[in-house]
Amino acid sequence: MESGNLYDTLVTYSESDFYPYHMPGHKRRKNIGAGADCFNIDITEIDGFDNLHQAEGIIRKAQERAADLYGADESFFLVNGSTCGVLAAIMSVTDRADEVLIARNCHKSVYHAAYLQELELHYIYPDIIEEYDIYDAISPEAVKAALEQYPESKAVIITSPTYEGIISDISQIAEIVHSKGRILIVDEAHGAHLGLSSTVPENAVRQGADLVIHSLHKTLPSMTQTALLHLKGSYVNRAKLQRYLSIFQTSSPSYVMMSSIDSCITYMRKNAADEFDKLIRCYNDFIAQMKACRHIRIASPEFLENGKYHFLAWDICKLVISVKGTSISGQELYDILRDEFHLQMEMSAATYVLAIMTIADEWKAWKRLADALIQIDDRIDGGIDATVDAAEDSAMEEGGLGVKAVSICHKPVSKMTISQALVSVSSDLREVPLEQAQGEISGDFVNIYPPGIPLLVPGEVIDAEVIAQIQYGLKLGLNVQGISSGGTVFITGQSN
Amino acid sequence: MESGNLYDTLVTYSESDFYPYHMPGHKRRKNIGAGADCFNIDITEIDGFDNLHQAEGIIRKAQERAADLYGADESFFLVNGSTCGVLAAIMSVTDRADEVLIARNCHKSVYHAAYLQELELHYIYPDIIEEYDIYDAISPEAVKAALEQYPESKAVIITSPTYEGIISDISQIAEIVHSKGRILIVDEAHGAHLGLSSTVPENAVRQGADLVIHSLHKTLPSMTQTALLHLKGSYVNRAKLQRYLSIFQTSSPSYVMMSSIDSCITYMRKNAADEFDKLIRCYNDFIAQMKACRHIRIASPEFLENGKYHFLAWDICKLVISVKGTSISGQELYDILRDEFHLQMEMSAATYVLAIMTIADEWKAWKRLADALIQIDDRIDGGIDATVDAAEDSAMEEGGLGVKAVSICHKPVSKMTISQALVSVSSDLREVPLEQAQGEISGDFVNIYPPGIPLLVPGEVIDAEVIAQIQYGLKLGLNVQGISSGGTVFITGQSN
Repeated sequence: MESGNLYDTLVTYSESDFYPYHMPGHKRRKNIGAGADCFNIDITEIDGFDNLHQAEGIIRKAQERAADLYGADESFFLVNGSTCGVLAAIMSVTDRADEVLIARNCHKSVYHAAYLQELELHYIYPDIIEEYDIYDAISPEAVKAALEQYPESKAVIITSPTYEGIISDISQIAEIVHSKGRILIVDEAHGAHLGLSSTVPENAVRQGADLVIHSLHKTLPSMTQTALLHLKGSYVNRAKLQRYLSIFQTSSPSYVMMSSIDSCITYMRKNAADEFDKLIRCYNDFIAQMKACRHIRIASPEFLENGKYHFLAWDICKLVISVKGTSISGQELYDILRDEFHLQMEMSAATYVLAIMTIADEWKAWKRLADALIQIDDRIDGGIDATVDAAEDSAMEEGGLGVKAVSICHKPVSKMTISQALVSVSSDLREVPLEQAQGEISGDFVNIYPPGIPLLVPGEVIDAEVIAQIQYGLKLGLNVQGISSGGTVFITGQSN
Repeated sequence: MESGNLYDTLVTYSESDFYPYHMPGHKRRKNIGAGADCFNIDITEIDGFDNLHQAEGIIRKAQERAADLYGADESFFLVNGSTCGVLAAIMSVTDRADEVLIARNCHKSVYHAAYLQELELHYIYPDIIEEYDIYDAISPEAVKAALEQYPESKAVIITSPTYEGIISDISQIAEIVHSKGRILIVDEAHGAHLGLSSTVPENAVRQGADLVIHSLHKTLPSMTQTALLHLKGSYVNRAKLQRYLSIFQTSSPSYVMMSSIDSCITYMRKNAADEFDKLIRCYNDFIAQMKACRHIRIASPEFLENGKYHFLAWDICKLVISVKGTSISGQELYDILRDEFHLQMEMSAATYVLAIMTIADEWKAWKRLADALIQIDDRIDGGIDATVDAAEDSAMEEGGLGVKAVSICHKPVSKMTISQALVSVSSDLREVPLEQAQGEISGDFVNIYPPGIPLLVPGEVIDAEVIAQIQYGLKLGLNVQGISSGGTVFITGQSN
């Protein structure tokens, strides 16, 4: 029963004459309910199939294969996405009300951990790569300075790669963090493919981070909601980590998910080198075709001033398709690609759209995108001065001309921690129109989603600048979370 | 895009010529990785497909269908199992360090919520139905008395049905809890099928509970890890509930899971009456066949003394196959069924095995089980005095004769809350051999799994009785969690 990978073993079992008198209720029969084809391998923790929360058999072996692939001391399968890995990682290295140092462009799960654990957050604000309106990497110097400013910070948490594929110098950052005796957590959710081939940048595990979280479904062929948490070195209390993983993940983890993780790992162990060679060839051919565009650009480091920014590398699995300075906005490009060409992008921002490309994409998918972009490029105008101020949005109303990014870099003043702002069941949260909220303390997160990086965190002062940014995001048609359809936000009634 | 149920819409989309330049990385292609057949409908939150954490479209409509089926004001899809529903429910109705009243036989997720929220737990201990060694229901009188003893308790949390199918009188309990102005949470994970037909007992939502959690995969045809949280009435702060659901569930919820939930609900809306009629006929025919057994009994209320116990009803989806007083133990019956007959049970306890039967079971599955049990019954002896003390385990060593249940009803003394016992990252937890732990304070949970009901909770005194029960469970070969393979347990070094 314990030979082969999890998927094969599940299939073998499903083909045997064992009959299930146990969960799940569909009893592996087809044709009842949806996802019928995977019901056949959807079992519970019966004999021979181990237990995710106490892995000693087939799941443990599968986790060891993952640890081996990524260079971790131990890897944990996650069936509740990177979210539960981030929560468990942060909770396991902090006590109540600790201070931690985080990049402001962290995922909302980092802020959620801060809420649960009553953490005091200190921020490192990434720079913006102005040519493309995307976040730069977190620099080792910024980490060093912040740790000197906030020496009580128990851990440093950064996101690398960013949603747009910008990779920080984890080796140097890890060295700095460890020199202060602190723990480095890297949310590498967007970089599960890193380090799997010599042709892609190295992953954070092998560069010295203590805890690394990987979303498998984002850039590798695995089902949505599957992820990994990697542990490396001796800084982290393993028992506490395991305890929190058991809290934040269902006690009935899906074998469909777990077998998807294992099959993905097994596949990558065997085929990563060939697959990434193919991916890189596709990327290069795509870039060559895109030279036909006069206005639309694929973001790339080669056109940036040397030494101006802090990134170590760019991830080619993310295509930032920039329309900055052209006559259309990111949202308009996104809509054209979808409505006219039936090409569904990952997301649109003010001045770009984002496409995720993986080893599962054949050349014809790359070519179809290039052909569409070249056609669109032919119809639009460019050469607009990209420094137009966000406030001067008359240009935007003329069709996206000179659209500027919504900035998260206004650095609002924090008056209390997230948990202080949200603490009480019956806490005195009030809903007021955004334009009347100036000077009040925010009682909720306000994010632009995706990716959900906060413009406002509970406990922060709502100033004129953030109000302008939120209004601008709404005007662009972006998905602004934390503001009602009626244009109201939550504020705390607590003393400022 | 928004007509029909989620599954149909996903399939329609997968058959269109839209090409995904977005997560997940497998791009809906088959033949890479496992679970290949469901990859086709595994997408992310693209246009037209709504967002679980801010449901306004197709997911909202699907949730409304669920609410309608169960009689809730609002229902929430859960892709991280009942676990996340229990956590969110409890966190949303309590503040830090509140008191709550729980049935001792609650699932470990209830204890985990207590840890996160630093709750002070007061227990209602269920009686044992001695004829079958299973927990009785929680009586309304016990709830009333406990609320009078602990009037500061913010909420009452009980499990009904139990893992073995025993149903409490939720109507009466809800009336008592509401008369004190408190909130009733019912972990109805094992009873998602209740109330779906006039031939099965009513569900907790329609009986007045404020928050009810349903595991769909346990007794209905839905994928493992799928569940629902129902909200009813005006006692609960909806915004806070939604906030915690967004914390405890991945920001990348699986559409395979969500479509499985929706398909299950849609199927039950149409077919519940017929399906349960069939199930009841199978059950009755099975019971008739089982009359051929001299020793093995299917637990049933009809042989119990009238008025001795507190249950309102028994659930026929759970077959408690009792070997109490026979020459074999539950574990031995479980092994025979599995090894000789290839019938995989849900679990084994000391004196019974548990089978879960659902609408997905055809008569031939019932008959195959009855035939096997009748054959086994023919080989074993019975008539043993079931009152043999657990300490007199010589009988057990002779082959299970007179095996007694492991009791959780010893009521250990609590010296501190769970969070106090586990509070510090570097907390002074020590590992000592079980037999040397007497008088120490537990630094971990000790459960027999499944179902994971605690023998010991962190912060409780390890007394001679619990040590004997743990040793007895180990001797029976049960899966005792919280004790190492070397026989050690964690104790706190904090002052007693």
